[in-house]
Amino acid sequence: MSVIGHIINGEPHTPAERTAKVYNPATGVSTKTVALASQATTEQAIAAAQAAYPAWRQTPPLKRARVMFNFKALLEQHADEICALITDEHGKVLNDAMGELQRGIENVEYATAAPELLKGEHSKNAGPNIDSWSEFQPLGVVAAITPFNFPAMVPLWMWPMAVVCGNTVVLKPSERAPSAVRFIVELAHQAGLPNGVLNLVNGDKEAVDTLLQDDRVQAVSFVGSTPIAEYIYASATAKGKRVQALGGAKNHAIVMPDADMDNAVNALIGAAYGSCGERCMAISVAVAVGDKTADELVARLQEKMAAIKVGNGLDNSNDMGPLITAEHKQRVSGYIDAGVAAGASLVVDGRGLAVDGHEQGYFLGPCLFDHVTSDMSIYTDEIFGPVLCVVRVKTMQEAMDLINAHEYGNGTCIFTRDGEAARYFGDNILVGMVGINIPLPVPMAFHSFGGWKRSLFGDLSAYGPDAVRFYTRRKTLTQRWPSAGVREGAQFSFPS
Amino acid sequence: MSVIGHIINGEPHTPAERTAKVYNPATGVSTKTVALASQATTEQAIAAAQAAYPAWRQTPPLKRARVMFNFKALLEQHADEICALITDEHGKVLNDAMGELQRGIENVEYATAAPELLKGEHSKNAGPNIDSWSEFQPLGVVAAITPFNFPAMVPLWMWPMAVVCGNTVVLKPSERAPSAVRFIVELAHQAGLPNGVLNLVNGDKEAVDTLLQDDRVQAVSFVGSTPIAEYIYASATAKGKRVQALGGAKNHAIVMPDADMDNAVNALIGAAYGSCGERCMAISVAVAVGDKTADELVARLQEKMAAIKVGNGLDNSNDMGPLITAEHKQRVSGYIDAGVAAGASLVVDGRGLAVDGHEQGYFLGPCLFDHVTSDMSIYTDEIFGPVLCVVRVKTMQEAMDLINAHEYGNGTCIFTRDGEAARYFGDNILVGMVGINIPLPVPMAFHSFGGWKRSLFGDLSAYGPDAVRFYTRRKTLTQRWPSAGVREGAQFSFPS
Amino acid sequence: MSVIGHIINGEPHTPAERTAKVYNPATGVSTKTVALASQATTEQAIAAAQAAYPAWRQTPPLKRARVMFNFKALLEQHADEICALITDEHGKVLNDAMGELQRGIENVEYATAAPELLKGEHSKNAGPNIDSWSEFQPLGVVAAITPFNFPAMVPLWMWPMAVVCGNTVVLKPSERAPSAVRFIVELAHQAGLPNGVLNLVNGDKEAVDTLLQDDRVQAVSFVGSTPIAEYIYASATAKGKRVQALGGAKNHAIVMPDADMDNAVNALIGAAYGSCGERCMAISVAVAVGDKTADELVARLQEKMAAIKVGNGLDNSNDMGPLITAEHKQRVSGYIDAGVAAGASLVVDGRGLAVDGHEQGYFLGPCLFDHVTSDMSIYTDEIFGPVLCVVRVKTMQEAMDLINAHEYGNGTCIFTRDGEAARYFGDNILVGMVGINIPLPVPMAFHSFGGWKRSLFGDLSAYGPDAVRFYTRRKTLTQRWPSAGVREGAQFSFPS
Amino acid sequence: MSVIGHIINGEPHTPAERTAKVYNPATGVSTKTVALASQATTEQAIAAAQAAYPAWRQTPPLKRARVMFNFKALLEQHADEICALITDEHGKVLNDAMGELQRGIENVEYATAAPELLKGEHSKNAGPNIDSWSEFQPLGVVAAITPFNFPAMVPLWMWPMAVVCGNTVVLKPSERAPSAVRFIVELAHQAGLPNGVLNLVNGDKEAVDTLLQDDRVQAVSFVGSTPIAEYIYASATAKGKRVQALGGAKNHAIVMPDADMDNAVNALIGAAYGSCGERCMAISVAVAVGDKTADELVARLQEKMAAIKVGNGLDNSNDMGPLITAEHKQRVSGYIDAGVAAGASLVVDGRGLAVDGHEQGYFLGPCLFDHVTSDMSIYTDEIFGPVLCVVRVKTMQEAMDLINAHEYGNGTCIFTRDGEAARYFGDNILVGMVGINIPLPVPMAFHSFGGWKRSLFGDLSAYGPDAVRFYTRRKTLTQRWPSAGVREGAQFSFPS
Repeated sequence: MSVIGHIINGEPHTPAERTAKVYNPATGVSTKTVALASQATTEQAIAAAQAAYPAWRQTPPLKRARVMFNFKALLEQHADEICALITDEHGKVLNDAMGELQRGIENVEYATAAPELLKGEHSKNAGPNIDSWSEFQPLGVVAAITPFNFPAMVPLWMWPMAVVCGNTVVLKPSERAPSAVRFIVELAHQAGLPNGVLNLVNGDKEAVDTLLQDDRVQAVSFVGSTPIAEYIYASATAKGKRVQALGGAKNHAIVMPDADMDNAVNALIGAAYGSCGERCMAISVAVAVGDKTADELVARLQEKMAAIKVGNGLDNSNDMGPLITAEHKQRVSGYIDAGVAAGASLVVDGRGLAVDGHEQGYFLGPCLFDHVTSDMSIYTDEIFGPVLCVVRVKTMQEAMDLINAHEYGNGTCIFTRDGEAARYFGDNILVGMVGINIPLPVPMAFHSFGGWKRSLFGDLSAYGPDAVRFYTRRKTLTQRWPSAGVREGAQFSFPS
Repeated sequence: MSVIGHIINGEPHTPAERTAKVYNPATGVSTKTVALASQATTEQAIAAAQAAYPAWRQTPPLKRARVMFNFKALLEQHADEICALITDEHGKVLNDAMGELQRGIENVEYATAAPELLKGEHSKNAGPNIDSWSEFQPLGVVAAITPFNFPAMVPLWMWPMAVVCGNTVVLKPSERAPSAVRFIVELAHQAGLPNGVLNLVNGDKEAVDTLLQDDRVQAVSFVGSTPIAEYIYASATAKGKRVQALGGAKNHAIVMPDADMDNAVNALIGAAYGSCGERCMAISVAVAVGDKTADELVARLQEKMAAIKVGNGLDNSNDMGPLITAEHKQRVSGYIDAGVAAGASLVVDGRGLAVDGHEQGYFLGPCLFDHVTSDMSIYTDEIFGPVLCVVRVKTMQEAMDLINAHEYGNGTCIFTRDGEAARYFGDNILVGMVGINIPLPVPMAFHSFGGWKRSLFGDLSAYGPDAVRFYTRRKTLTQRWPSAGVREGAQFSFPS
Repeated sequence: MSVIGHIINGEPHTPAERTAKVYNPATGVSTKTVALASQATTEQAIAAAQAAYPAWRQTPPLKRARVMFNFKALLEQHADEICALITDEHGKVLNDAMGELQRGIENVEYATAAPELLKGEHSKNAGPNIDSWSEFQPLGVVAAITPFNFPAMVPLWMWPMAVVCGNTVVLKPSERAPSAVRFIVELAHQAGLPNGVLNLVNGDKEAVDTLLQDDRVQAVSFVGSTPIAEYIYASATAKGKRVQALGGAKNHAIVMPDADMDNAVNALIGAAYGSCGERCMAISVAVAVGDKTADELVARLQEKMAAIKVGNGLDNSNDMGPLITAEHKQRVSGYIDAGVAAGASLVVDGRGLAVDGHEQGYFLGPCLFDHVTSDMSIYTDEIFGPVLCVVRVKTMQEAMDLINAHEYGNGTCIFTRDGEAARYFGDNILVGMVGINIPLPVPMAFHSFGGWKRSLFGDLSAYGPDAVRFYTRRKTLTQRWPSAGVREGAQFSFPS
Repeated sequence: MSVIGHIINGEPHTPAERTAKVYNPATGVSTKTVALASQATTEQAIAAAQAAYPAWRQTPPLKRARVMFNFKALLEQHADEICALITDEHGKVLNDAMGELQRGIENVEYATAAPELLKGEHSKNAGPNIDSWSEFQPLGVVAAITPFNFPAMVPLWMWPMAVVCGNTVVLKPSERAPSAVRFIVELAHQAGLPNGVLNLVNGDKEAVDTLLQDDRVQAVSFVGSTPIAEYIYASATAKGKRVQALGGAKNHAIVMPDADMDNAVNALIGAAYGSCGERCMAISVAVAVGDKTADELVARLQEKMAAIKVGNGLDNSNDMGPLITAEHKQRVSGYIDAGVAAGASLVVDGRGLAVDGHEQGYFLGPCLFDHVTSDMSIYTDEIFGPVLCVVRVKTMQEAMDLINAHEYGNGTCIFTRDGEAARYFGDNILVGMVGINIPLPVPMAFHSFGGWKRSLFGDLSAYGPDAVRFYTRRKTLTQRWPSAGVREGAQFSFPS
């Protein structure tokens, strides 16, 4: 059984350490294991990053950016291999993996703009004959800790911007889906990234805690669940580090009576069930304004859902693959049971789905609840599965009050044609990423990704312009040269 | 004895609570007390800020900025009264207080640019017919906790930017010098700041802890000592808040052999002894490169120091006033004793200074140590008194290594005429604010203030452009309108 | 009869030269004359500006901005006097003059942000150990030539930004309404503007041509009619100058069937007849989509127009004052006659209006044409009077095609509730300033003002961020210091 | 004999028209001709660009940028072929051509940042419930007219930025060196640029005048000599277009007594004689401060010049190739004769150089004049050949006065170690691109290129951030949605 190991200082590194099995969730079979870095191994990676830092810091941003130009080309060249690795370990449909990779590549594209993005502000004559300017200097070694659900994309949100800003990185991806990111790290080295600038350690809590505690690590970027995000934020800030920790979500879509219902239904199907709902931007609650709207919405969703094909992600004719683990499937099913018990109407029941030839796979069909209320656990909790809850309200204000009362504030959207409604929603909703007739308002790579409330801990969002500020610290220089006397004096003036 | 109370929701508020005496450090006499807010009182202030928030958030930035235009005019009009209050409680010379106030006013001036500073980024056609833009939205209630040494200026670093960004504020200034800031808060209301937008509570740890623990407080700005900064950073982040906590400093000036020595000596006298060294940007270490440089530097400093006049700050012919408290004077004297004991040469000894008619004042004369080494407590610790240490090194690199090894990284400067030396210094020094022939490289109000290492905890610096980002959170909107069918359809097309 | 003279180098200057009468358009009486600068006088003003330039250029932006803080306060203090002068010479209602002045003051407010606005871009390590940055340097002497219709505001669009950028200015306002601007220039000097930084010459073509031809004038900002704008643009560019020349307009409002008709009608009344239509942002064409919309629109406009009060602008209960001159009244009346002759329906006829006690005033009542077509001169030409033309179309596309075919592209707006319609309009309309349910989409002072097509000649718009670029030229510095050998050599390294 | 034709709408197009011979300047032999577009052909190209515009304008910036990513890769792949074409027609040494191409590619890299660069400014609540934002919209068809001396680079300064901003282009390169640019235009199409977006016409004055006169052409970018630049600027602005026209130069380097002489001499050799001095950033005047400096400088230049190898550019061991034409060689020689006649000391005489086997090539050896004065034609005129003039002055101020009095203000540099001298120079020199110890301070692609005085006509510099503003026009939208009544009314609120 092959072991997926670390990459430290540009070299594969797989000491005899604890390992964990990696499963194919479509088959339930494990043919690989992943190394789980000990504290010592993690510290080796930190040391490699630390050693690579001085030379990398001094490399002009233009040259750092050029590595990203090469890297983008390699990612495009090897896209099929990367997606096959994603599907093998995560389960999502290949097309979906390709979409994920594409969003990741967009972050690499943005990173090529480093010379523009790193410009400081220069004030001539800040005072009389005094100039002042700012430089955005790298931090040193930074850590990136990423989740299973976007094994390729989320790491690409982080380290490309970190390295073009002049930092060196220790990346600890999810131990559930380690192969795609490992391959990508190899490609980065092929693209010309010097050894030690990007180090990969696979691992679990031991590796994470080492990164949080080590004084050489200056900053931590994290994406995962809210409880872990809070742990990361509190632990690493207590060590004086800067931290951005992105957590969970419960994203609502409001469907207004004037919505283009075709658009809304299509959008919701994709946003609720795509990638099995294992996305922090998935829509898990549809709030229908008015019973008429709700009735039509539920009927049309139900109709569309009949056509959703669930199966092995290797087959692009499928719409949904399996969930990530048997345990997670169990957990999601438990929520469905609880929803039924709490009195919600289970309009479409995905439990008990069998995929031919994949009896051990972690499949669950798409589920639709109607008449959900805000006290039910299917409403309050992030399920992270293919479960869409319809909540019925009488007014748009009631819909917005629901959203604003929820503990999460990651994404949301509204379906309407009305300019005033859209503006009122965008203005007053306490959510960081807002869509107007856009179900998954994931910001483009040249904007930044960040939720509000308990969906993000820290000052600055992920990727985009905020990443420049997160991965650099400001240095302000103020300069005055002494009087011109010296220059004007004897030394510079000669009789001919 | 008058009690200096709180201002909550625009009204004076002084419940019967614990109080503390406020002293005139030049005389050692206390004629006033300051209220120390209980948890309940602090929560009242938070509640007032929370209540004022919705209307203030919706007030256009242009109108918020106009309050600052008015406020600037009032500060200029009442400058003498403000400075008298500063000197009465802090002790610094009136001229020095005026300088402090002027820097504070510059922050108010910068805040008038709110409409420009709050612009978001707009992407037409982020995707096909999809637009995306960011808005920088206020956070809600934010807390500002400020130190005794700049009783007027540091609060003005914080709350004007916070309020023009649309937040409401609870300000807890130092209980040692509460009167100037209280008067300034009154002027802000006169300028048109609505009630509840800016609330002042005087207090101590009870008030601070209430602000750190209360869930309604979204963010905390702090300036003070490093141990407290760390406490603030860890406590408030553990509650999920965003925090910027500015701590201590030990600022070095390198004097190069080619320095304009007149300029360097004059600059160092001001930077080391101005405001009694009770400034986080004070120069407390002069690193002379070469013994020849050191000898000349020490001789000329000694000569200049003979002319330094110490006395009551009300008399502008004095150069230095008293230290802030008797305890602090004791602490500084202790360091001087320790320096002598450790073997440093006390070239000028300010201990035992008596100021006629002010025998109970907390005066200490300026002190100069030569031959200081990096293991002495006068070198390692922030003394916050009128003590300048000269360290002798052989090369510029040795000087820089010293600075880079110190735990603090607030400010630093170099005196040289050499372009290459200046650039090498600015590039490689691990300090956030760097002066080239500028002893106190405090960034202008349109840049941002922040040290590195254990001088600042958080991602974003104080005031200037960073304050906009600290006091706002990013909201990203993505918008697509459904197909033009509706518009082009029957409803919008009429037979004539 | 008093003569309104020039201000050169901070001093009143009124040589014996040609003069022109200044009329009160409400009474038709002239009690003042205005000096018309000869070439020699204009060159004196240029010389004064040239002489003041070196010192002003070196004044830190912060200090230049402070003059604007003072100036804003003085404008607010003297607002009533300024408005009285505007009404006396231009005729507009006092309230309207106050609105004009307020917009002018907003430009002064924006100019106070000079230290922020003038920041250059700094690239650390643009190459290995090479830094590069840009500075936005002033141009030198710039000319501002402004129209009669906003005697206070348009000059304030120009010179405050020009001077905070470090330029010195020769301002030539309209000779029809010279008093308000002259008073404002005096206030600028009271505010602390050094002599020679802002020079005022009254005059006509001789003064203008002198400014266009003189090699010391680096740039020209102009607002007026399109034929003159083209003359200015061609003449001054042929002399190698940079020019921004804003010309005429014919602004259309589209009224969609779903428009909030109350809002649209109220907005159109103000936008069409406010200031007698003598505004380059006035709406002079309403395009109604569908006959039902048109019928309702015309009926409701007609009804509202009955209540419009025309009279002396000194009386704030009036809605409209007189036109600027007898000749202009004649010209506007001629257009109305031509419209009738061409077959348009004159629904409301403002000709023949008599204002009691003002029989010699240049009054014309508001006029409304229905069934206007695109071949009529009332449609093709800028009338600059109180004449609104209603054009009837069947579809929104037809409305937009009309607008896009017109030679002007200054402002436009649409009245609708539909998000998609608004976005389609904003995207595809060939007009520089676009309103969505906003009849006069004049950009705020922190944005920039500029039309498209034959409404603006030049690259950069007026005021706001573009003004910074127009009034400065970029200097890019690239810096490398020779090897550290010198610093590291004997000179900087001493045996102890 | 092959004819180098046009590329219109993505297709080769070579009608039977006038042609001109293209020479290999190293051999004096012509084996190719270039088509000279008639007015009709040029108008065809304009029409193709016009037709391609609507679809290209609507293509999201991200997709436009992706073409540039591909294009960069193709340029790198085909670099050798491109450089061979440059050398064949221009004569410069292959290495030098590679340097040129590399700078061109950097502009393509910058263009990939289009989504970032095209962001507009968004003001939430510009007024109460009113939002306002700017969009930077393309202009339509733009023309680029480029010189012979950088046949690959200067076109890449222009059209990549123009097209990523959404414009379509007609490019008219120099008819003396048309092959490299033609090949590059083919590569752009291979990279995915849609047909018609970039059109190439070869030609002379007829083509140029057509571009200047045609109303469909919105803007003109030009690089060439000052007389032509002035003609372009005046002609195209008279047609209402926006124009940037870059002209000639006479770039001075000041050598200070404290300069690192090794660095200065090496730098000057490259800057004066590289590419035969046929660069608008070439240094053609060295101003030595003090006779001692001058004597050393001249002696060391003379010594270095002995080693300069002149010959066919195909041989990379050569340092200099031929001049561009026989006529130009004649003209340069004439200047040398005039310099001698005027009394300057011709220290090194490059006239009469014979290159073995290239007797018909247009070779001229490097020339060095000492004791040049400001009245000589070798000083006043741009020679555009391998001629360096040394002027001797007594003080730095005298050197600066010389530079500031010259009609050109393109580039300049100073060699010094002194921070104060460098700052004084950078501040007070009337030149757009300034080097501190950098002989050719060509701004990086992420800054902008532009001289002052008669070196550039227009407001905005070439490439970099300014190119975004030059190739776009600002549209400002202001939006308010009518009252919420409609949304809150019956239509959106339903009984359950």
